[in-house]
Amino acid sequence: MKCRPNMYKVKEIKLADQGLRQLEWAEMHMQTLMKIRERLSKEKPLAGIKISAVLHVTKETGVLVRTLHHAGAEVYLAGSNPLSTQDDVAAALASEGINVFAWKGENEKEYYENIETVAKVSPNIIMDDGGDLHALVHEKYYSTNIIGGTEETTTGVVRLKAMEEAGVLKYPVIAVNNAFTKYLFDNRFGTGQSAIDGILRATNIMIAGKIVVISGYGWVGRGIASRMRGMGARVIVTEVSPVRALEALMDGFEVMPIDKAAEIGDIFVTATGNINVIDMNNIIKMKDGAILANAGHFNVEIDVEGLKKESKQMRNIRPFTDEYLLPNGKRVYLLAEGRLVNLAAAEGHPSEVMDMSFANQALSVEYMIRNKDLKKAVYNVPEEIDNEVASLKLSVMGIKIDEMTKQQKEYSKQWKYGT
Amino acid sequence: MKCRPNMYKVKEIKLADQGLRQLEWAEMHMQTLMKIRERLSKEKPLAGIKISAVLHVTKETGVLVRTLHHAGAEVYLAGSNPLSTQDDVAAALASEGINVFAWKGENEKEYYENIETVAKVSPNIIMDDGGDLHALVHEKYYSTNIIGGTEETTTGVVRLKAMEEAGVLKYPVIAVNNAFTKYLFDNRFGTGQSAIDGILRATNIMIAGKIVVISGYGWVGRGIASRMRGMGARVIVTEVSPVRALEALMDGFEVMPIDKAAEIGDIFVTATGNINVIDMNNIIKMKDGAILANAGHFNVEIDVEGLKKESKQMRNIRPFTDEYLLPNGKRVYLLAEGRLVNLAAAEGHPSEVMDMSFANQALSVEYMIRNKDLKKAVYNVPEEIDNEVASLKLSVMGIKIDEMTKQQKEYSKQWKYGT
Amino acid sequence: MKCRPNMYKVKEIKLADQGLRQLEWAEMHMQTLMKIRERLSKEKPLAGIKISAVLHVTKETGVLVRTLHHAGAEVYLAGSNPLSTQDDVAAALASEGINVFAWKGENEKEYYENIETVAKVSPNIIMDDGGDLHALVHEKYYSTNIIGGTEETTTGVVRLKAMEEAGVLKYPVIAVNNAFTKYLFDNRFGTGQSAIDGILRATNIMIAGKIVVISGYGWVGRGIASRMRGMGARVIVTEVSPVRALEALMDGFEVMPIDKAAEIGDIFVTATGNINVIDMNNIIKMKDGAILANAGHFNVEIDVEGLKKESKQMRNIRPFTDEYLLPNGKRVYLLAEGRLVNLAAAEGHPSEVMDMSFANQALSVEYMIRNKDLKKAVYNVPEEIDNEVASLKLSVMGIKIDEMTKQQKEYSKQWKYGT
Amino acid sequence: MKCRPNMYKVKEIKLADQGLRQLEWAEMHMQTLMKIRERLSKEKPLAGIKISAVLHVTKETGVLVRTLHHAGAEVYLAGSNPLSTQDDVAAALASEGINVFAWKGENEKEYYENIETVAKVSPNIIMDDGGDLHALVHEKYYSTNIIGGTEETTTGVVRLKAMEEAGVLKYPVIAVNNAFTKYLFDNRFGTGQSAIDGILRATNIMIAGKIVVISGYGWVGRGIASRMRGMGARVIVTEVSPVRALEALMDGFEVMPIDKAAEIGDIFVTATGNINVIDMNNIIKMKDGAILANAGHFNVEIDVEGLKKESKQMRNIRPFTDEYLLPNGKRVYLLAEGRLVNLAAAEGHPSEVMDMSFANQALSVEYMIRNKDLKKAVYNVPEEIDNEVASLKLSVMGIKIDEMTKQQKEYSKQWKYGT
Repeated sequence: MKCRPNMYKVKEIKLADQGLRQLEWAEMHMQTLMKIRERLSKEKPLAGIKISAVLHVTKETGVLVRTLHHAGAEVYLAGSNPLSTQDDVAAALASEGINVFAWKGENEKEYYENIETVAKVSPNIIMDDGGDLHALVHEKYYSTNIIGGTEETTTGVVRLKAMEEAGVLKYPVIAVNNAFTKYLFDNRFGTGQSAIDGILRATNIMIAGKIVVISGYGWVGRGIASRMRGMGARVIVTEVSPVRALEALMDGFEVMPIDKAAEIGDIFVTATGNINVIDMNNIIKMKDGAILANAGHFNVEIDVEGLKKESKQMRNIRPFTDEYLLPNGKRVYLLAEGRLVNLAAAEGHPSEVMDMSFANQALSVEYMIRNKDLKKAVYNVPEEIDNEVASLKLSVMGIKIDEMTKQQKEYSKQWKYGT
Repeated sequence: MKCRPNMYKVKEIKLADQGLRQLEWAEMHMQTLMKIRERLSKEKPLAGIKISAVLHVTKETGVLVRTLHHAGAEVYLAGSNPLSTQDDVAAALASEGINVFAWKGENEKEYYENIETVAKVSPNIIMDDGGDLHALVHEKYYSTNIIGGTEETTTGVVRLKAMEEAGVLKYPVIAVNNAFTKYLFDNRFGTGQSAIDGILRATNIMIAGKIVVISGYGWVGRGIASRMRGMGARVIVTEVSPVRALEALMDGFEVMPIDKAAEIGDIFVTATGNINVIDMNNIIKMKDGAILANAGHFNVEIDVEGLKKESKQMRNIRPFTDEYLLPNGKRVYLLAEGRLVNLAAAEGHPSEVMDMSFANQALSVEYMIRNKDLKKAVYNVPEEIDNEVASLKLSVMGIKIDEMTKQQKEYSKQWKYGT
Repeated sequence: MKCRPNMYKVKEIKLADQGLRQLEWAEMHMQTLMKIRERLSKEKPLAGIKISAVLHVTKETGVLVRTLHHAGAEVYLAGSNPLSTQDDVAAALASEGINVFAWKGENEKEYYENIETVAKVSPNIIMDDGGDLHALVHEKYYSTNIIGGTEETTTGVVRLKAMEEAGVLKYPVIAVNNAFTKYLFDNRFGTGQSAIDGILRATNIMIAGKIVVISGYGWVGRGIASRMRGMGARVIVTEVSPVRALEALMDGFEVMPIDKAAEIGDIFVTATGNINVIDMNNIIKMKDGAILANAGHFNVEIDVEGLKKESKQMRNIRPFTDEYLLPNGKRVYLLAEGRLVNLAAAEGHPSEVMDMSFANQALSVEYMIRNKDLKKAVYNVPEEIDNEVASLKLSVMGIKIDEMTKQQKEYSKQWKYGT
Repeated sequence: MKCRPNMYKVKEIKLADQGLRQLEWAEMHMQTLMKIRERLSKEKPLAGIKISAVLHVTKETGVLVRTLHHAGAEVYLAGSNPLSTQDDVAAALASEGINVFAWKGENEKEYYENIETVAKVSPNIIMDDGGDLHALVHEKYYSTNIIGGTEETTTGVVRLKAMEEAGVLKYPVIAVNNAFTKYLFDNRFGTGQSAIDGILRATNIMIAGKIVVISGYGWVGRGIASRMRGMGARVIVTEVSPVRALEALMDGFEVMPIDKAAEIGDIFVTATGNINVIDMNNIIKMKDGAILANAGHFNVEIDVEGLKKESKQMRNIRPFTDEYLLPNGKRVYLLAEGRLVNLAAAEGHPSEVMDMSFANQALSVEYMIRNKDLKKAVYNVPEEIDNEVASLKLSVMGIKIDEMTKQQKEYSKQWKYGT
C-alpha cells in the first residue's frame, strides 16, 4: 500500500500498536464504510489525488483516512480541535504512511501550524470539520489544483453558505453534514450519547434528579436533551427560535430564557453554534457547584474568557474539570475548557454513527472526482449517496425492510377525484 | 353576525346548544387562533369572499370556520370523511349562519353529494383536507372566480404536487400542511395522541405489554410510535425508506418487513398515505385477536375490501370494532372500518394542536387574498406566518424564550479563519 | 347453569345482548382467568357458597362473576361507585342468573341501598372493593355464616388493617390488593392507562406540552406519572413521604408542595387515598382553565364540597366535565364529579390487567373455602397463588422464561468465604 | 484529627494530593452524609470503636470513612473487589490516618491477604460489601469484642440470611442494603447509570440501535434496562421469576430465555447475583462481536472460566475489553474480566447516590453502638433512619414537600362505613 515515505508529527510513534488495535475495534463497528472500502480498494478512483483533511483525529477518522488511502489518495491530516486527538491512533496512521500532524493538547500556535502544514501541500480535495481549513485555504493557499471540498459540521456549512452568499467561495463543496444519514444520526444520536459520556468521565456525577439546561434545540441539542432525560434528568431547553422552542415544549421539556434557567440548573450544556450563549451575567446567577459544558464546535458558546478574567481563583479538580471561584464566593465547574466535551473528555462519537457520516465523506469525495463540472457552490450530498449509505447500513445491521409494490408506486402518483 | 339566511343539511339542528358549548371549550384551548380572530374581526379582509371548505367537521374546525366568518367570508362546509363529523358542532355552525352539509355516518353517495354541493357555489377560495375538493373542482367546477386554495394534509399535498408536475394545476395552493407549526405538531403530536385515544375508546384494551406494529415512520407514524411506547408497548416499525427505517432503529424501535411483523403483532396501525400496506397475505398470518387500525387519510391502507370478501363472517362487537372471521378460523378486529381511527372513534386532534394548524389556514387565506399575483403552483406557508404562529402560541402558553444578541446575529454570519 | 330464579335491579334488561358481546370481548383478553374458570367449572369448589360482592360492575367484573358462578357459587353483586356501572354488562349478568343491583348514575341513597341489599343475604364470602361492604357487614350484618372476605383496593386494605389493629375484625380477609400480580400491574399500569383514557374522553385536551400535577406517588400515582410523561406532559409530583418524593425526583419528575404546584399546573390528578389533598386554598390559586381529576377510590381527595359552596356558578360543558366559576373570576373544570375518573369517564382498567387481579380474587376465594382455619386477620395472597397467576399469564401471552439450574439453586443458598 | 501512626499498603502515597481533590469533589455531592458528619464530629459516638471495613475503595467510600473517623472510630479498610480501588483515594485516606490496605489490580492472593489484615485487628464493628468479611470473621476471627456488623449489598444480605437461618450467625447485622433510601436508589439509579458509564468507557460503542440483553430484573437490572432504553437500545430481559418477567413485559421490554436472547443480542449485562447465568452454551450461539459485561457483585455470573478454557485465543483490545476467539471462529468481548463493570471500568456509583447509602451506613453503625441489646439476627435499617436520610437528602437538594394535615392523619386511620 505504502510506496513513498510519509511525514508526520505525532505524540509518540510507539503508541502505534495500541492505535492499530483501536482501529481494528472501530472497523468492526464501521461495516458500512468497510463495504465501501472494499469496492474503492479495487477501483482506486482516488489514485493520484491529494487530500488535505482537518478532522478530529479519532479511531473513526482513522478508518476513513485508511479508506481514502486504499482508494488511492495521498492524505494529509491535522486535528480540528486541540484536545480531540487520540495519540495512539495518530501514531498508527503515521506508521501506515499517512501524513499526520496532530496530538492531544496542542497549544493554540501548534494547532494553527498543523492546519497550515496540511493546507500548503497543494491538495486536490479539502476535507474539513468546522470550516477553518476552508477559510485558511481561501485566504492564503488557494490553487487551481483544488477540485473541491467537503464539510462535516453544521458550523462549517453555515460558514460556507455565508461565503457562497458573499460570492467568495472558490470551489464546490459538498455539505456532508446535510446528508440525512449524517445529521439525523451523528448530530443527534452520536452527540447525544457522547456528550453524556464526556460529562460522566469528567465529573462522575449523578444525572438522575439533576436539572440539566440545554441551550439550543437543533439536532445536537435534542439528542442531548433526549438522552439526558433517558438518564433521569429534568431537562430545561433554552432557544431563540419560536418553532424549536415549541417543539421542545411538546416533547415534554421545559422552556425558558437562559437568564432564568441559570438560577436553577445543575448542569449546563451549550449546543447552538453561536457565541456567548452563556455569559457572565448568567454565570453569576448560578448555584454553587454548577457544571458547564459545551457540545458545539467552537469554544465560544460559554464565555470562558470572562470566566477566567472575573474569577478569583481557578484550579483543576479532576481531568477536564476546572473549578472557578466567582467573586460572589460561589464555584462553577467548567469541563474541557469549554471545548467539545464529547471529544475532549471522552472519545467523540461512537464508531457506529461515524460509520454513516464517513461513508458519506468517502462517497462524496469519489463523487467529486467523478463529476468535475460542479459549480462554486455548497451542494447537498446527492440523494442516491444518502440512500446507498442507509441501505448499506441496514444490510450490515441485518435489518430487512419493505419495498413499494407496483400498485403502491402508482398510487403515490395519482391525484384524481374519488380514487 | 350575518343576516342572510344560510343553507344547511345536518343530523339534528337541536344539537346546536350542545355544539355551542363544545365550540366554547375548543376556543378556550385555541387561543392562538382567537388572537388572530380578534384582528381579522376588525380588519375584515375576507369581506365578500366565498370559501368552499371540505374539512373534518369537528369543534376545532368550527373555531376556524367561525374565524373566517368573523373575517367577513361566506363559508360553505362539507365533511372530509363520512365518519368524522361531530353532529352537535355541525348544528351549532348551521345555527350561526354557516352553510354546513355534513353528518356522521354519511353513506358514500351522500358523502360525495355534500362535497359537490360546496364545490358548485362558485367559490373564491378552496380549502381542502385530503385533496378531494381540489380534484373535483379541477374536473368539474373550475371557474375564474377562484383565487386560490389551501391544503391541510400530507396526502393532499402529494396529490397537488403531482398535479403541478403534470402541468394541470389551475390555481395557486398554499400547502398549510408544510408549515413547521403544522406538520411538526399536528401530524406528530396530534395524531400520536388521538390515534391512541381512538383505539382505546374503540377497544379499551391494555397497551402495556402489547406488540404494536406501526406501518410508516413519517411524522404521523413516529408520533404514534412514540406515544405507544409511552404507554408501555413494544413497538415495531415497518417502512419502505431506508433512511426512515434507520431512524426508527436508532429511536430504539424494531424494524422488519410487514410480512414478518404480521405474525407477531397484537395491534397494527397504518400511517403511510399509501394503499394495501396491510393486505390479505399479511392478515392471514396474524394471531387470533389481532386489531387493525388506520391513521392515514384514506381508508385504503388496510385491504378492507379483501377482508370483507374473504371473511366467513363479520359482526360488530363494540362501537367502531368489527370482528372478521377469517377462513383459517382466526379472528381479526377492524376499527372504524379502516377509516381514520382518531377522527372516527375519538374526536380527532386536540384543540391545542389544531390551534396552530388552523392559525396557518386562516393566515394563509388572508395572505392569498392580499397577494393576488401567486402562480399556479403549490406554495409553502410563508416563513413569516410560520414564525408568527409559533410566537403567538408561545405567548398564549405563557412561555418566554431568548433573543439573539447583536453579537450573536453577527457571529452567525461570519466565516473568516481563526474567528 | 342457572337453576333458580335470580333477583336483579338494572337500568335496562334489554341491554343484555350488547353486554354479552362486551363480556365476550373481555374474556378474549382475560385468558388467565379463563384457564382458572376451566378448572373451577369442573371441580365446583364453590358449590353451595353464597358470595356478596361490591365491585365496579364492568365487563371485567362480569368475567369474574361468571367464573365464580361456574365454580358453583351464588353471587350477589352491587356497584362500588355510583358512576362506574356499565349498564349493558349488568343486564347481561342479570340475564344469566346473577343477582345484580347496580346502574350507572345511582344517587347516594340508591347506592347505599344496593350495598345493603347484597349485605343482608347472609353470605359466606364478602368480596369488596374499597371496604364499604366490610364496614357495613361489621356494623349491621355480621353472621357466623361468614367464612371470610377479600379486598381489592389499597384503600380497603388500609381500612381493614385499621380494623385488625383496633381488634374489631370479625373474619379473615385476604388482601387481594397486596398480591404482586395485582398491585404491581393493576394499580400502576391499569390506572396509569385508564386515568389518561378517562381524562381524554372527558376533555379531549392535548397532553403534550401541558403541566400535569400528580398528587401521590404510590403505585397508582407513579403509573399515571409515567404514562403522562409518555404522552409528552411535564409532570410535577406532590407527596408527603420523603422516600417517595425522592423516588419521584430520581425518576426525573419535579417535586414541590401542592400549594406551589397549584399555581402552575394545567391538569391535576389525585391518587393518595386521603382527603382534601386539593383544597380550596389550592384551587383559588389555579390558572384559569385548570382541570381537576381524581384517580383515588373515594371522591374526597378534591374538596368538591368546597368547590360547590364557593363557586359563583356551575355548569356542565361536556359529559363528565363541569365548569366552576370561582369567586375570583377564574374557571376550573372538575371531571366526573371528583369520582374515579378512569371508571366514570372511561371504562376502568383494561381487561388484560383485571385478568390478573381477578385471577387472584377467584383463587383467593377458593383458598379460603379450602382453608377454613384462618384467623380474624388480614392475610396477603399466598405466594403460590401469586406465582401461579404470573406463570399462567406469561403462558397465555406466549412468553417463556428461564428456570434456575440445580447449581444456581444451590449457589443462591451458600454463604461460605471465598466461594 | 488523629495523632497515632497508622498502617497502610497502597499503590503510591504520592497520589494523596490528587485523592484529596477527589474527596473534596465527592463531599460536595454528598451533603447528606456531610450534615451527619457535622453532628457526629461533635458527639463522637464512635470514640474508642474499632471498625473493620471491606468496601470498594472509591472517593465516596473515602467520604464515609472520613465521617467514621471524625465520629471517633479507628478504621481499617480493605477493598471488596480486586479492580475497584481508586489508588489516589486510597493514598489520600492513608495520608489522613486511615489504615488502608487496597490497590487497583490486586491479584487473588493479595486481595484475600488484605481482607485478612483488616479482619484480624479485633474490631468492634464489621462493615462489609458482599459478605466476604462476615464469612471470614465467622470462620477464623470471631471475638466477643464484636458488637455487630453492617452489610451493603443484596448479595451479602442473602448470604447473611442464609447464615441466620442456619443458626450460625454470631452477631447482629444491619442490612443497610434493605433501607429504602439505599436499594431504591443505589441499586437502581446508581448502577443504572454507572454500568452504562463503565460499558462506554471500556468500549465506546453506540448504544442506540443495539439489542441489549439484561439478565435479572431486580433493582439493579431494572435500573440498567431503563437507562439502556433511555440511550436508545432495544432491551431484552431474561428472568427466572414469573412476576418480575411480567413486570418487565409491562414496562415495555421483551422477555425471553437467555438461550434465545443469546442469538440476537449485541450487548449482554448480568445482574442476578447468581452463577453461570451466561454459560458456554449461550456464548457459543452469540453473534460475532457480542459484548459481555457483569453488573452483579461476584464475577461468577458469566462463565469466565469456560470462556478461558474453550477459546482458541484471547487478547486485550482496549482497557477492560478482552477479545475471546471462540472455537467456531466468532469473537466475543468480555469487559473487566467479568467483574463489576461499573466499578472496574468506570468509577462506581456517583457520589449523590452513595450519599444516601453511606448515610445509612454511618447512622446504622451509630445505632448499633447506642443499642447494644440487638440479637444475633439480620435487621433492617430502622424506619426512622430511613426517613431521616430521605428528609436530609431532600433538604440538601432544596426540595420541599407536603405534610399531612391533622384531618388527613385522622382520615388515614378511619374505617367506618359511609365515611
